[in-house]
Amino acid sequence: MFIDSAGEKLIADNFDNQVRPGQKDRFKQQIEFILEVDKLKQVLRQTILMDKSRRENSAEHSWHIALTVMVLSEYARDADIDFFRVMKILLVHDLIEIDAGDTYCYDDQGRKDQGQREKVAADRIFNILPPDQAGTFRDLWDEFEERKTPESRFANALDRVQPLLHNYFTRGQTWQDNDIKSDQVKSRMQPVDDGAPALWNYVSALIGDAVKKCFLSK
Amino acid sequence: MFIDSAGEKLIADNFDNQVRPGQKDRFKQQIEFILEVDKLKQVLRQTILMDKSRRENSAEHSWHIALTVMVLSEYARDADIDFFRVMKILLVHDLIEIDAGDTYCYDDQGRKDQGQREKVAADRIFNILPPDQAGTFRDLWDEFEERKTPESRFANALDRVQPLLHNYFTRGQTWQDNDIKSDQVKSRMQPVDDGAPALWNYVSALIGDAVKKCFLSK
Repeated sequence: MFIDSAGEKLIADNFDNQVRPGQKDRFKQQIEFILEVDKLKQVLRQTILMDKSRRENSAEHSWHIALTVMVLSEYARDADIDFFRVMKILLVHDLIEIDAGDTYCYDDQGRKDQGQREKVAADRIFNILPPDQAGTFRDLWDEFEERKTPESRFANALDRVQPLLHNYFTRGQTWQDNDIKSDQVKSRMQPVDDGAPALWNYVSALIGDAVKKCFLSK
Repeated sequence: MFIDSAGEKLIADNFDNQVRPGQKDRFKQQIEFILEVDKLKQVLRQTILMDKSRRENSAEHSWHIALTVMVLSEYARDADIDFFRVMKILLVHDLIEIDAGDTYCYDDQGRKDQGQREKVAADRIFNILPPDQAGTFRDLWDEFEERKTPESRFANALDRVQPLLHNYFTRGQTWQDNDIKSDQVKSRMQPVDDGAPALWNYVSALIGDAVKKCFLSK
């Protein structure tokens, strides 16, 4: 049930919103979910925009990498994977941050309880949907996290490459602000080699050049 | 060629970025495009976020409606359409706003040369990509604009429904700020009836309730 900022309940079922006979609850749950996920636009990441004007939020990041599927699909380790599922995984993968927040990938303290926080978030957020859809969304998120299927491996590769581009092309501002070293970045980028090995030389060269240009400490 | 905010060219080809033999230019174009589209995160729409804190940008909007494909696909007029293409259409549909800006749907003056401005933008932006991908992206955008295929009709329906939800659940703030009448909203929503007729009763009820609650002038 959506509560607007004035605190008054603006429920969608105080008038006839029945779009399929007998499925009023189903439709209401779907609308509630669409309203709820708007909050991902408020979750700020450490990454900054290419023009350095502000931090990126997780909705923008999700859009960017979903679009990148269309641009870089030819570099996936397996050429015949289901790119539709890759795209769905990426649109869904950060929704748990609505409750769990964005945990900075180099924040060792925050990462300790990240898994637990994110599971609780997934239980709440995906279950706003009707059960069948909640299951589909949860499966996509689990698949992303487990990194076992070729689809999720490619999804993880793109999820790592995009922030690297942002960091490199903003001259490593976020790296410097957080005192990150090149070995940490290299280790963080390993899923690229796993899901899109053809991109690894580029990733490796960017990191090397970032060190050379003093965007990143050795 | 990406130019960072300090004005210095940070070109990606000053070191070996060759990911496929003989395809250095192709990869460079792909990376340039990924960097370029970051600008969509700066294009502000009239729509405000559900908590009214600020205006939404076109990257966030694109993510939101691409995700909505997964939630509302069962309401498409045609059940067996290619939802992957719907999703791709929605991820791409606003890219031309990087140059052409977001034209408010009720701005009759701005809409006069909108088509021309957007075509010029499409020519520049999609052609950053290698020719085959530029063609694919341009085709998706043209398909969205022409609203002839079942996929593009459903895409257009979702592109209209989401801002309606934002307007209704923020108590019509943007409608009031721009002195919009219910007949204008009804007319703007016609593509919903076309692409997702099962949602029309809901859309119609939301508009009626918005008038009743004085979120929207009759």
